Amino acid sequence: MTGSGVTPTVAFEAALSGDRTSLARVLSMVERGGADARELSRLVHARTGRATTVGITGAPGAGKSTLTSALIRTFRAGGESVAVLAIDPSSPFTGGAILGDRVRMGEHALDHGVYIRSMATRGHLGGLAVAVPDAVRVLDAVGFARIVIETVGVGQVEVEVAGEADTTVVVVNPGWGDAVQANKAGLMEIADVFVVNKADRPGASATVDDLDRMLMLRAIDGWCPPVVATVATSGDGVGALADAIDRHHRHLVDSGALATRRAARVDAGLRRTVTALLASRVDALATGDEWMRLCAAIEVGRLDPWTAAAQLAED
Amino acid sequence: MTGSGVTPTVAFEAALSGDRTSLARVLSMVERGGADARELSRLVHARTGRATTVGITGAPGAGKSTLTSALIRTFRAGGESVAVLAIDPSSPFTGGAILGDRVRMGEHALDHGVYIRSMATRGHLGGLAVAVPDAVRVLDAVGFARIVIETVGVGQVEVEVAGEADTTVVVVNPGWGDAVQANKAGLMEIADVFVVNKADRPGASATVDDLDRMLMLRAIDGWCPPVVATVATSGDGVGALADAIDRHHRHLVDSGALATRRAARVDAGLRRTVTALLASRVDALATGDEWMRLCAAIEVGRLDPWTAAAQLAED
Repeated sequence: MTGSGVTPTVAFEAALSGDRTSLARVLSMVERGGADARELSRLVHARTGRATTVGITGAPGAGKSTLTSALIRTFRAGGESVAVLAIDPSSPFTGGAILGDRVRMGEHALDHGVYIRSMATRGHLGGLAVAVPDAVRVLDAVGFARIVIETVGVGQVEVEVAGEADTTVVVVNPGWGDAVQANKAGLMEIADVFVVNKADRPGASATVDDLDRMLMLRAIDGWCPPVVATVATSGDGVGALADAIDRHHRHLVDSGALATRRAARVDAGLRRTVTALLASRVDALATGDEWMRLCAAIEVGRLDPWTAAAQLAED
Repeated sequence: MTGSGVTPTVAFEAALSGDRTSLARVLSMVERGGADARELSRLVHARTGRATTVGITGAPGAGKSTLTSALIRTFRAGGESVAVLAIDPSSPFTGGAILGDRVRMGEHALDHGVYIRSMATRGHLGGLAVAVPDAVRVLDAVGFARIVIETVGVGQVEVEVAGEADTTVVVVNPGWGDAVQANKAGLMEIADVFVVNKADRPGASATVDDLDRMLMLRAIDGWCPPVVATVATSGDGVGALADAIDRHHRHLVDSGALATRRAARVDAGLRRTVTALLASRVDALATGDEWMRLCAAIEVGRLDPWTAAAQLAED
């Protein structure tokens, strides 16, 4: 039961019938975690597995939001429903910028076949690792054909979140700085498709060529990540990007890699879920006199954290 | 007992007496986690609390390694021993770049009062959250007066790791791009000292002024983060940076904030340790027929992860 008095079951049934307010409520329950999120996971599970998922990642400023918006247009032109999960660092200082991104997607606001939702990363890394896959499964269950997971930065969170997508698109800009950053952050290895966005800027074709050469060295399971040049603001190349995404998806199906990926995701997901379940028990432990007593003992050097943890976990 | 046949106790005793090979071995045990790391945590704990810790973070390419190297020089000139913990994304593709950074610090290679160590983030976020504080405590225990924690990117890991430092330095370059990225990544709020590095480039003083104006709005506990202009390659401004760090530390001590921060760190550390302890139990669960059976049931939609997790955790 949530504060609004609506149970997960009621909210999910309404979301299934197309009610967007209920869908938003369901995703908020998922984001908050806890008993409601667990209940939803149970309700949602059997209905999942139909959507194709695309992760879009790359350095801030690479044009990911604009590209996502253009990609929505392409998918919609093909008659497919699209949900976007935008993973944001929710700093109070950035409200404006992020809001700006969402507003830029405003062209889709009146289209019932499009749903855009931000999820905050701030302060609960572990929470996000569970919440994002759960949110993806909700969007899958309520019937979106395409789910786009857009991340803001190039950090470890992005690499983890990318693991939830069937196809991961890494976006860079002309020039080498971005590619080097992507490389440093480990994005090179997770890219199934590479995009050189803002390709109307100088150096675009050289960047495409350089990336092509680098990527040729790392064909995995018979797939060499293609490099697509786009100008997201005009829509140039976005059709070719959608084609590359679909080509990758067919490759996953034909090679059997999709089944392998999804099995690996189930394994990783179960690990995370067990960890989250155990972590919720930690929260229950982290209160009261016993906890205060142990913290005080650690602070003065009388006790080390592992011994204290073992004492708590034994209780 | 490790593969080399050296126990944590023996390695730590040797590290305490100044043996660098043993210190490296101890830190590897901490990085690997498990029983040796726990044993070390116990050995180390009572000896900690003397070092002052500085976190250095900011976008890739901002010049953090060069700045760290210059800062080492300044601390060493004051007769203080310095340990650097460089948190790297350890992609096989980036070995060169990271190695390059370390080699740049080669000027300190023959100085016994300086110790530089890389730690990898790849693949174990949760592991790092425990390993970094443990490594800091080892370096504190073996007697380094200054511990510098340098991170590579501007992601959530950086924000988490910064929480381990008494003073967090955020490095940007002239121009607004970096500051906006730092802002997006939530680094603005964790900065105790701001550095505009490469200040010999155009726009440096405008960037300093802009940051000063922004930061004036957010004096916390009576501390308004100063903005220091540096040219790490020449050493210009690095003395002023060291002064700002020390001024911040004195402020922490005088205002009582240091005690509050350290108490909060103990609380957060105990939570993480309990979580890690429980997670190690997950690893023990994640094998065998029962695990395979549950994964298979999830994959075909017969079981949801939370129910499966609850079944495992009950056993």
